[in-house]
Amino acid sequence: MRSVTKDNITDVFMGYLSKDTDPRMREIMGSLVKHLHDFARETNLTHDEWRTGIAFLEGCAAVETEDRHEFVLASDVLGLSSLVDMLHSTPDATSSSVLGPFHVSGAPPLPFGGDMKRHYGGPVLLAEGVIRDAEGNPIGGAELDIWQTAPNGMYASQDEEQDTFSFHGLMTTGEDGKYAFTTVKPVEYTVPSDGPVGDILRACGRHPWRPSHLHYIVKAPGHRSLVTEIFPDDDPYLDQDTVFGVRDDLVMTYVERPASEFPEGMELSGKITEPFLHVKFDVKLARV
Amino acid sequence: MRSVTKDNITDVFMGYLSKDTDPRMREIMGSLVKHLHDFARETNLTHDEWRTGIAFLEGCAAVETEDRHEFVLASDVLGLSSLVDMLHSTPDATSSSVLGPFHVSGAPPLPFGGDMKRHYGGPVLLAEGVIRDAEGNPIGGAELDIWQTAPNGMYASQDEEQDTFSFHGLMTTGEDGKYAFTTVKPVEYTVPSDGPVGDILRACGRHPWRPSHLHYIVKAPGHRSLVTEIFPDDDPYLDQDTVFGVRDDLVMTYVERPASEFPEGMELSGKITEPFLHVKFDVKLARV
Repeated sequence: MRSVTKDNITDVFMGYLSKDTDPRMREIMGSLVKHLHDFARETNLTHDEWRTGIAFLEGCAAVETEDRHEFVLASDVLGLSSLVDMLHSTPDATSSSVLGPFHVSGAPPLPFGGDMKRHYGGPVLLAEGVIRDAEGNPIGGAELDIWQTAPNGMYASQDEEQDTFSFHGLMTTGEDGKYAFTTVKPVEYTVPSDGPVGDILRACGRHPWRPSHLHYIVKAPGHRSLVTEIFPDDDPYLDQDTVFGVRDDLVMTYVERPASEFPEGMELSGKITEPFLHVKFDVKLARV
Repeated sequence: MRSVTKDNITDVFMGYLSKDTDPRMREIMGSLVKHLHDFARETNLTHDEWRTGIAFLEGCAAVETEDRHEFVLASDVLGLSSLVDMLHSTPDATSSSVLGPFHVSGAPPLPFGGDMKRHYGGPVLLAEGVIRDAEGNPIGGAELDIWQTAPNGMYASQDEEQDTFSFHGLMTTGEDGKYAFTTVKPVEYTVPSDGPVGDILRACGRHPWRPSHLHYIVKAPGHRSLVTEIFPDDDPYLDQDTVFGVRDDLVMTYVERPASEFPEGMELSGKITEPFLHVKFDVKLARV
């Protein structure tokens, strides 16, 4: 009989796997269990600490709903979500960044120059740019799915005051690859911190803040889809995004311009009377 | 601004921890996140695989109830529960083994020599032994909490046909430290495999079986409590317990003896007409 010991249990685990196990499954389970066991051995994890870990998972389970994804949030604040993004980014393309839990599929079409701000107050932000391929050529017919917080720091899916697709829009580029829309600058906001993940943040003396950002999902035939975010370069949380989403090439200057410089051909053209903010952000997609 | 990269994200995570963070919390979170990130980097974990992992956790959450502890089961079949046990066992004491999810607190007292078999069929098993301290002296007043499966392979908590405390008993040793009770031999059984943990077992070509075992929790003032199990040495699953609970010193020979050798002073003394099984298992407790 083979006795299981604290030193051989990882090998015993691997010995339990059938020879027919899918090789990638074997690789992933092997690495997962090796690291799980090494974690317990290195920390000399106690029964009480193990129970705390189980209680954390059960606590996440207790708050998990269709609209509240505590396990995703845990992955986000531990940096796993961002790490997976970065592992699969390519130097040919704009950096990807976290999807987050607030995207709502099926946003209504937003025409070139359309306005997402509607009746909301605050200075107008004009965002524009070009969707390009890896060689820098504009991509016509690219689809840009845009979403962001309202000025109250809430996404439509969190906020009963907003319509389903408030601050969501789906824009398709013309032959020149250009996109442009108006909105208000998104605000910094906190990830949900009233659940078990919030307890972890507090126990580590961490804050729950994310810097202001616009979310984009960019798709074009023959290209890898990109999930990304754009950050203003003056945000106080840029160096300490609680979900690790900030990359150098996603940080942009939001320039304040006089009303007279607001361009023609936009939904709000001729209606701007105050200075507005202007950000240019080109997106580069890698080929499939 | 500091850009987060796939190579520095673990350090960035540690930099987020406040200086006031409890040192043990820092040690555990640091080791956990280092291993989590190394796992993702080593396997080059894809977005689809990450989603599979999140779906696994959400699937566990969906089946988790007061009586169904899928996260504990996941820890069990990955060997983490047994590893934590082994990290905190001492050479002075009998090995510990997994508690499992089926223990019911508050079992009724079972007198020395009492019978847990009651109306259930099958050959009688007489289990007896001495609870000793680290120097081998008998411990009087030690408390032995015993539980096991019924012959149908189910624990009372799983089985509507059984009373709450069916095959559960709480025995207190006299001055000689001795315990003895009769029962039927527990049977091999499967851990619950109709949930996400079962999916993992199948994907790895693993079976869900545990070898036959008696569960004990042994407590005595001034000593470390012990959670353990006793296994028969002829069980077919001894080398492949799906929760990694088998240790050399917990494997015992169950000897078949003629009815005439059944001892006096037991509840079933004088009532045994068939050969019975006999197992001797002494328990050694470490001092606090």
